[in-house]
This record gives sequence, structure tokens and C-alpha cells, in this order.
Amino acid sequence: MNVRLIARNLGYVLIIEAACMLPPLFVSLIYEQDDFYAFFITIMLMVVIGMVLLRIKVIHDNLYVRDGFAIVGLGWLLTSIFGALPFYFSGTADFIDSIFESISGFTTTGSTILQDIEGIPRGMLFWRSFTNWLGGMGILVMSLAVIPSVKPSSLYIMKAESPGPSPGKLVPRLRQTARILYAIYIVLTLVLIVLLVIAGMPVYDAFIHAFSTAGTGGFSSRNLSIGSYNNVAVEIIITIFMLLFGVNFSLYYQAIKGNLKAFLHDEEFRFYMGTVAAAVVLIAFNIYGTVYDNVWDCLRYSSFQVSSIITTTGYSTTDFNLWPVFSKTILVILMLVGASAGSTCGAIKCSRIVLLLKAARREIVRIIHPRSVYTVKINGKTVDEGTLSGVLSFFFLYMATLITSVLIVTLDGKDMVTSATAVIACIGNVGPGLGMVGPMGNFSGLSDLSKIILSADMIIGRLEILPVFMMFSPSFWRRREI
Amino acid sequence: MNVRLIARNLGYVLIIEAACMLPPLFVSLIYEQDDFYAFFITIMLMVVIGMVLLRIKVIHDNLYVRDGFAIVGLGWLLTSIFGALPFYFSGTADFIDSIFESISGFTTTGSTILQDIEGIPRGMLFWRSFTNWLGGMGILVMSLAVIPSVKPSSLYIMKAESPGPSPGKLVPRLRQTARILYAIYIVLTLVLIVLLVIAGMPVYDAFIHAFSTAGTGGFSSRNLSIGSYNNVAVEIIITIFMLLFGVNFSLYYQAIKGNLKAFLHDEEFRFYMGTVAAAVVLIAFNIYGTVYDNVWDCLRYSSFQVSSIITTTGYSTTDFNLWPVFSKTILVILMLVGASAGSTCGAIKCSRIVLLLKAARREIVRIIHPRSVYTVKINGKTVDEGTLSGVLSFFFLYMATLITSVLIVTLDGKDMVTSATAVIACIGNVGPGLGMVGPMGNFSGLSDLSKIILSADMIIGRLEILPVFMMFSPSFWRRREI
Repeated sequence: MNVRLIARNLGYVLIIEAACMLPPLFVSLIYEQDDFYAFFITIMLMVVIGMVLLRIKVIHDNLYVRDGFAIVGLGWLLTSIFGALPFYFSGTADFIDSIFESISGFTTTGSTILQDIEGIPRGMLFWRSFTNWLGGMGILVMSLAVIPSVKPSSLYIMKAESPGPSPGKLVPRLRQTARILYAIYIVLTLVLIVLLVIAGMPVYDAFIHAFSTAGTGGFSSRNLSIGSYNNVAVEIIITIFMLLFGVNFSLYYQAIKGNLKAFLHDEEFRFYMGTVAAAVVLIAFNIYGTVYDNVWDCLRYSSFQVSSIITTTGYSTTDFNLWPVFSKTILVILMLVGASAGSTCGAIKCSRIVLLLKAARREIVRIIHPRSVYTVKINGKTVDEGTLSGVLSFFFLYMATLITSVLIVTLDGKDMVTSATAVIACIGNVGPGLGMVGPMGNFSGLSDLSKIILSADMIIGRLEILPVFMMFSPSFWRRREI
Repeated sequence: MNVRLIARNLGYVLIIEAACMLPPLFVSLIYEQDDFYAFFITIMLMVVIGMVLLRIKVIHDNLYVRDGFAIVGLGWLLTSIFGALPFYFSGTADFIDSIFESISGFTTTGSTILQDIEGIPRGMLFWRSFTNWLGGMGILVMSLAVIPSVKPSSLYIMKAESPGPSPGKLVPRLRQTARILYAIYIVLTLVLIVLLVIAGMPVYDAFIHAFSTAGTGGFSSRNLSIGSYNNVAVEIIITIFMLLFGVNFSLYYQAIKGNLKAFLHDEEFRFYMGTVAAAVVLIAFNIYGTVYDNVWDCLRYSSFQVSSIITTTGYSTTDFNLWPVFSKTILVILMLVGASAGSTCGAIKCSRIVLLLKAARREIVRIIHPRSVYTVKINGKTVDEGTLSGVLSFFFLYMATLITSVLIVTLDGKDMVTSATAVIACIGNVGPGLGMVGPMGNFSGLSDLSKIILSADMIIGRLEILPVFMMFSPSFWRRREI
């Protein structure tokens, strides 16, 4: 392993994170709040440590797969720890809670241990939502876009951090790809801020919610989340943008290049939209007459909540914990499914579900016609067997991690629904679950052990399992240069 | 498809089922109860229809894969419907409930819609447990053992009905294999009956419980299940025998041939025993001090319940629904895991879990060393890629079926834990779940829709998914002779 180059890369990541903490620091200054010092100390710490790491001399600059995964794994650990320090230094939360909140932010989960969000200083809330935004596209992908001398082998970093079964480059040059992705991301975010302000949201709130909508994180500055505005225009805008951020960004790139048909031809996009439509209709039917008495309200709450959950954002406009169990079950299923690969969303992702269904179909045909050759295709292209068995194993590891985590969390003695949905919401980077951790609840009542397990789940979910488990494999650390 | 031969085979199955209904008919006669007529009419019906089917002229006697699966699928449907008639004719239950009870019996699930078991006529209870016994080894495997002229191609029937990822023949001749399996099964059952009588169980009860222990079904003649005897000797005997019936029967065959080491060398057996031991200890710790105050009681209830659930029998000696949530979660996980392939148990099965873990491990190693060749082995033998991708797809289909079924069952409006564990218990052929369908509850409170879905789940679980889904595939019914 190229330890020196890994350390140097981590140095860059810390400096970039320090720079990212400047906006919340300015927000604190503008509102003249005490949390200014918490940001200042953290920034100083990161700059000093980052500079030390950058002084390490790099002997050769070849990156191998393992190095890429190590940079991403350790990078996320460092980023989360330093991202937690402002919460800790300002006395907003104790150490474990601060780490939980920071990881929840960067992984775009949006689960919170804060009990009264409106009592938190404004700089801190700004930082919280900004971590959603930074984590959405990936702070390492960002570093690829800004640091000098990116070697083609850095593709491994992008592969490890980007969501989806087979992420690739949009253009031959990697740095260019990272920049295009961030450009699309920034433009969409700015448009959203403007629209929210026009719809009547205060400017500060518009920034907060644009950040956490774009990152599909879901941190809000209000205890009642988006529901507190009770503003239909705001709800419609956010519904649309949550869905937009759940689309594979490469489709936007193709659209910019004039290929608008790409959307219609993309099987994942069609599955994603089909699932949203089906879920909205089923829930609207189910809550009609039981929770709301007019069709318009049913569609309003149902479409917002479905979009929020399938994109793993986690906002709420109502306490869906009080909905009938059929609707709640649909939401839990959406928590597992997630939106598109190559978006800012979490969970299993639609393209994997499509591949899983096709692989299962092939298994059935294989028994009927044992001698037939049947390749699985997606968007007309043959999926190689390696990718396919990777996706099938991914699904098993996802469920196995989920079930094991639920078992540990039940040691808290909380009810089964709370324990299970807490894990499903964290590993899928959704945010709220049901029961005690429902939209009107929070994660503060859980034990430290549960919070640590759930934090691990958030990172496992965000990095899509393998990079995390790899680091526990002995052959990963063996000093062999492959 | 060889429709004539399929029909003929189904004729045999009906005649065999008619013969199997004679013992409960005699039990009714002995106890002079009214249900005698219900059995008599059903037997007459089956004999007449069976005879008609047997008169169909077979043109050629080649069986293909599809024919094997069709015989098993339709065979199970017919067996379940006719097996339900005694309950219906005797007025024990309405039609849907009778079907549910019959399918629950043959699939060795043991879920019941009966609210007062002790009020049911003795012949009916005998039949109920006897269906557990018949379904355990498979009524079609039985037909292979007894009907004349079994072609080697009938292996497909055995493959479709026997549990596990790659069932095979013990000896070159298929009929001989079926007979060996039934011989081991009968001997173990007889030993169990004798031991239960010695331990103090009434003879009638000993038959009932030996049948449903052997089939790992779990139908009891008492409302409180095995708990009603409050007899430690009975509990120990049943615990041991449940575990024995959860072992792959081919290991017994090898043991008879003198190869006792086969047990130790079998990876599935080691995983099975390891899981049982771990679960017993964890639950005992968890219920110590909260439910029971002495270690002996903790181990007694924990070991019985773990054995009952992992072997998917479903007996209870206490209301484990009242245990702490950690213990209940372990039981739910065991409901998913199940015991060994090639046993009478249901659920996913240990050998599949072992293969899934190994496949996942390979995926991790593959990323670290992309160019390495890594084959998955079990018991020293290489597992071919076809079997592996079959197991991975099986896991996905199992979970997908489970989640879809839960969604439909939640339309009943029952709480999430009841809905989810009802499905987990039925698809895994376990019996009781938690909440309303817990060990002290039953399935009578669910809607007809839920009962139909759960009945389908029981058959899907018992036949291990693919044979059932195949029948919904258009290419299955196409008139092509492959």
C-alpha cells in the first residue's frame, strides 16, 4: 500500500473540510452567536494536522484499488470525527452524540439526536445541513475536482465513494467528470434556493433546506421539518427537487449534451418513476377516509412523503407514524429500495433491484430450459456475470448487516418496530424510522452502543458495504503490492 | 409436457393420500366420534378421482424437468385441497380455514386457525399431525418409494420436492434412495413414540407429537402445546428429537454405513450446531433475571424454544411472546435461517447461509485482488457457479416474497410485528410468530385474503420458491419438448 500517498490525500481532505467550515463560521459571526469559537478551534486543528500530512514526501504516485478504498474509508472516518467537533466544542451534544450527528450529516442520513432543533445556534444548524450537501456528492469526489495532479488511477477513489453497482466516468478525464458532477449539483442547488425564497421561505431557511434536499440528507432547522411552514408551494418545490436529486446525474449530463431521450430509455429511471407513482397512489388510497377526508390532502401528503422516503431524504410534512400500517409498510419498503445509482441517495438503489429481479427471472428460466444461454441485459447492454454476482452478494450483505444490527439494537429493550426501522433508516441513509424514532421522535433515547452501531450502519450504507468490510479483512492489510 | 403421465402420477398421489387417511379414520372409530364420516367421504372421493386418473393411457414415459415440477406443484395443490376436506365436512372449520389448516399441515408449518384445539375430535387431531409427518419427507417422495416403474428421470420430482440447494441421490437407484430416507424417518419416529410413552405421555398424545416432531410441523393436541405437560423428561426428549430431525438425512445414511466422522466434517452440521449453541446461550443470558430467576429454568426454556424454532417445528413450552425483545429477535432470525438441507425443516437452511457467507467473502477478496481466481468450496468440494448464483437468487426471491406478502397482510390493519412475523413464520414453515400470532395466539383473526396469502407462502416456502414461481412463467406452459 502506498501509505505516504494515502496520508497526503487525507491531508488534502482535511484542508478542504476546514475550508468548508468557513461558511458556517461566517453565519455564526453574522448572527453574533457563541458557536463561532467552536468552528474556529476546529478549523485551526484541521489546518495544522492537514499541513503536517501534506508535508509527507510521496515516493511514487501509483494508486491501487486497495489504496483507493483505504483513502475513502479513512477519509470518511476523519471527516466525520472533525465534523463532529463543532457540536462537541459548542456544548450542543456530548461526544458520542456529536459523532452520530456528524456521521448522520455526511452520510446524508439526517437522523438526529437533537431534541429541540430550534434551540440550536444558527451556525451549527447551517453546518449540519452543509454536511448533508457535502456528503451527497462525496467530499472525496470534491477533492478529486479541486486538488492538483489527479492520476487516472484515482478512479478507484471515485468507484469506492460513488453510489451504484458500476459507477464510471462521464468523460475520459476523471477530474473533468468530478467537476461536471459538482457543476450540475451546484446549479440545481442554487435554483432550489431561489425558488424556495420566491415561495416565501426565509433566506436562511432556504439555504438550510436546499443543502439538505440536494444531499438527500433531510436535516431541517425546524422541529416539525417541512411541515412547520404549512406552505403548499414550498412542499411542491421540495417534492420535485427531492425526486430530481434521486435521478442518476449522468442522465443530466446526457440531457445537457442534447440527448433528452436518455431518460425514457433508462430502465432504472423508469423503475424509479414507476415505483414512486405506485407508492403515491397506494398510500393515497389507504389514507383516504382514515386520516384525511379529501383527495387533494391525501395526494399532497402521500406524494411528499413517498418522494422524501424513496430518495432517502427523510423530511416530513406530517407524522406518518400515525398512518395505517399498510402505508407505513410501503414507506419501510421504500427505505430499503432507495432511488437511483449515481444520485445523492442511499439504500439499495433501483438499478440493483432491477438487476436482482432480472437475475431471479433468469434462474427460473434456467430450470425450465437447462441448456439455454440467457444473459441479463440492462438498457440493452449485457451485464457481465461479475457485476451480477456482485449485486446478488451486495443484497445478501445488506440484509445480513441490517439483521445483525437490529439484533444488537434490541439490547436497548426498545420495541421491535423502533429497533428495526432505526437500523433500516440508518443503513439506508433515510433519517427517521417509525415508533420512537419516527418523524416526530429522534434518536436521543437510544443507548451509546446503539448509537455507535447505527453510526457504523450509516457509513456502511453510504459507502455501500464492501469498502467498510474490506478493512476488516486480513488480506486487505497484507503488505503485498497488488 | 407429458400431460398424461403427469395426470397418472397425480392419480397415484391421490390413492396414496386416501390410504394415509385410513389411520385417522380408525382413530375416529376407536374413540367413536362423528368425524368418521368426514374421513370416509373424503377417502371415497379420492379413490374415485384417483382411479379415473390412473385409467389415463400413458403414450410415452419420459419425464422432463418441467414435468417433474408440474407433478410436484399440482400434487401439492391436490393433496392440500383433499387434505382439507375432513376439516370442512366435519364442520371443524370453514372452507378457507380448512385449506389453511391442511396446507399448514402438509408444509409442516403448524400455524393454526383453530381457537380451541382440545375441543376438536381426536381423529381430526390425528390427521392434522399426520399431515405434518407426511409432508415432512414429502408425499411425492413417498410415492416414488411405493409406486411401480420409477424411471431415472423421476429424479426431477425429488429435486423439486426435497429441501436444499442441491439434493441428490444417496444410492444410484432413485427408488432405493426414497426408501432409505423413509426407513430412517420411520425408525426415528417409532423410537420417539416409545420414548415419549416411557416419559409419561399418553399413547395417543405420543403419536400426535411424534408425528409433528418428526415432520418438524409442530401441531399439538393441546392448547398450551408441549408446555401443557410440564414434564421435563418430555421436553428433553422432544428437544433432542427436534434437533435430530433438523439434520441432513444423508448424514444418518453415512453413519449407518459406518462413517460417523461425516457429522464432524459436514460444514452445514457444524454451522447448525454452532447456531443452536450460540442462540441458547444468548437467550438464556437475556431471560435470566428478567423472566426466570434460576439458570436451570433459563436453559430449559431457551434450549427448547431455540430447537423448536430453528428446526421450524414451532412447539412452545412458554409464551415467548413475553420475552425481552432481544430474545424475540433471535427467534425471528432463527425463523429465517432454519436447519439443514435434506432434513424435514423449512426456511432458508444452514447450507444456503454458509454458501451466502462464502460468496460474500469472495466478493470482498475479489475487490482487493481483482485478478485472483477464487472458487467457493463446501466440505472440500468446489461449488459450481450455477449453484452459487442459484442460492444468491434464492435469497433475494425469499426476501422479496416475504416483503411483498407482509405488505398485503398489513391490509388487515394488524400491527407490524404480527403481520411481519405471520409471514416469516409461514414462509419458513415455522408455525407461531409474535404478537397476535404468537405461541398463545392463532391465525383465526386474520382476513381471508391474509389466510390465502399465508397459505401460498407456506407452499412457496416448502417447495423452495422456484417450482411455484415457475408455474407463473409463460415459457413453462409453452408446448415445447425441452
